[in-house]
Amino acid sequence: MQSAPTRPRILTGDRPTGKLHLGHYVGTLANRVRLQQEYDTFLIVADYHMLTTKIEGLAEVQENVRELVLTYLAVGIDPSITTIYLQSLAPEVAELNLIFGMLVTVPRLQRVPTLKEQMRDLRIEAASYGLLGYPVLQAADILLPRANLVPVGRDQASHLEVTREIVRRFNDTFGPTLPEPDTLIGEVPTLVGTDGQAKMSKSLDNAIYLSDDARTVEKKVMGMYTDPTRLRATDPGHVEGNPVFDYHDAFNPDKAEVEDLKTRYREGRVGDVEVKKKLARALNEFLEPIRERRAAYEQQPELVERVLLEGSQRAREEGRRTVEMVRGAMGLNYNFARSAALSR
Amino acid sequence: MQSAPTRPRILTGDRPTGKLHLGHYVGTLANRVRLQQEYDTFLIVADYHMLTTKIEGLAEVQENVRELVLTYLAVGIDPSITTIYLQSLAPEVAELNLIFGMLVTVPRLQRVPTLKEQMRDLRIEAASYGLLGYPVLQAADILLPRANLVPVGRDQASHLEVTREIVRRFNDTFGPTLPEPDTLIGEVPTLVGTDGQAKMSKSLDNAIYLSDDARTVEKKVMGMYTDPTRLRATDPGHVEGNPVFDYHDAFNPDKAEVEDLKTRYREGRVGDVEVKKKLARALNEFLEPIRERRAAYEQQPELVERVLLEGSQRAREEGRRTVEMVRGAMGLNYNFARSAALSR
Repeated sequence: MQSAPTRPRILTGDRPTGKLHLGHYVGTLANRVRLQQEYDTFLIVADYHMLTTKIEGLAEVQENVRELVLTYLAVGIDPSITTIYLQSLAPEVAELNLIFGMLVTVPRLQRVPTLKEQMRDLRIEAASYGLLGYPVLQAADILLPRANLVPVGRDQASHLEVTREIVRRFNDTFGPTLPEPDTLIGEVPTLVGTDGQAKMSKSLDNAIYLSDDARTVEKKVMGMYTDPTRLRATDPGHVEGNPVFDYHDAFNPDKAEVEDLKTRYREGRVGDVEVKKKLARALNEFLEPIRERRAAYEQQPELVERVLLEGSQRAREEGRRTVEMVRGAMGLNYNFARSAALSR
Repeated sequence: MQSAPTRPRILTGDRPTGKLHLGHYVGTLANRVRLQQEYDTFLIVADYHMLTTKIEGLAEVQENVRELVLTYLAVGIDPSITTIYLQSLAPEVAELNLIFGMLVTVPRLQRVPTLKEQMRDLRIEAASYGLLGYPVLQAADILLPRANLVPVGRDQASHLEVTREIVRRFNDTFGPTLPEPDTLIGEVPTLVGTDGQAKMSKSLDNAIYLSDDARTVEKKVMGMYTDPTRLRATDPGHVEGNPVFDYHDAFNPDKAEVEDLKTRYREGRVGDVEVKKKLARALNEFLEPIRERRAAYEQQPELVERVLLEGSQRAREEGRRTVEMVRGAMGLNYNFARSAALSR
């Protein structure tokens, strides 16, 4: 048995589906930057997961992986303390996926609520075997580094249930081997889109990207949806539910300025243009150091590659250890053979 | 692209579930000994497959693996021309399994007739995810060495359909990459049990094992079921459907003796004891060289281990190549990274 890591271990990550935007920052990235100080964080770039809903048009995946890692580094995720790795570069996850699939029934997986949601949202008529097995692969992801905690939003607590059931089934059958992970429930604030729609999202074309330049940000902000009931700058306006003020709250560090704008907005003493210009300035001040770090990282040849290789190497080592533990507990370690064969 | 192997490649194998008997010899082993001369044979000991229907009581698996390999060697499978390997020692199969699972739907797998049969026979109420995915794992087995042919019995031709569909879906989506394997339909004779039941089988306790000693074989033969309508040696007896004569046909090389016994049996001129004694002698003459080879192999320390390690090493090399081809075709090869990460 391994000695317990000194810090509790977290598993979190993203699919490499494209550029990240302010909504991602508010929802998960900022939290990860904080958490990495306290927890041993494994941050997975989940390329195999992507295949559960997307098989064609994979040409941009390599670029998306690079984009994701550059963004992680630019927002302040530190690869010297966070293990950033590519799922498919730690193929032990596939072995764990295969084994864990024996421990959960098809009807159980069919009852997972997100399966039906995804099928409806993506208009999938018949789930692929891989899509049905999404929670099994997720269990393999979480258990590969034997994570203790998975940060999730309040409404996502059920996402971990299949993993926990697999762990219990495994430990009941083969003896205590795997840790049963807990959710680390946190605020996962969502950010409305620039068009006022519920959620910032690439597909709704209402996103401000972390990599947008200053002019693009300004243009997007100046075109933002505000209070539709307000026709003139002298009309009293609504601050609540107004995306411009939501963004001020989230990104403008000058709280006095924000309060002043809100007061004047409510009283019809400020125009949208001033509110938006100040938001654009605040956003650009927030984004500028991210852009600068990103530009510097982009200049370093093979930095992304090195980060992923080193992280994936660490993940593989953990994965090998987990596979050994799992197979050992099952009586399938073939002490004569396995380590010799796999070390070659 | 690799150059095509000079001989067509075959994938065949067994689960390590216990000792092999005469029925296995007649059904598959004899055929494999012949086929290995003509085909590049990959012979898989399918331990992961076993988990699709058996999760508990795995203690004897290691011994069963050893038993299986000793039997292969003893009946004349030559590890210098046949690649004997352990499924879980070529874990690339799990990666292929994960990827191929994205290419087949759940309803398609639910329609596989053997799934329902297995669930009924084993009284499984809810299939595990792994059991539903049995044909996907089988596709991964077959495609890991990019086998061209899979020897199957006449009634098993449908077993390859899911594999062929996965290959077509893959090649249609990502360009021609994988060979579409064909069935090599052959006679797969079944052998009745010593009790006259339709099939020799461990669970029916009607088997003569390839490892049984001469006395055990004689005892089992002397207790065999024969023509139940024949009460005295002078009664005319039935040869057809009489297991004792089935075995004579299968294992007694002295065809004149067999014809003589049949004639006298039909005419009531020979007793069961003589027929059975001659069968026991013939069986022991057939089994003796197998026993001798087996005893010699058992004396060689680590022979089984070496055979499995070398075979699994070869299978892994093929598996790595296949995974590279598959990921390359999908655009997931990450030319920057993968070979570097995985070669460490």
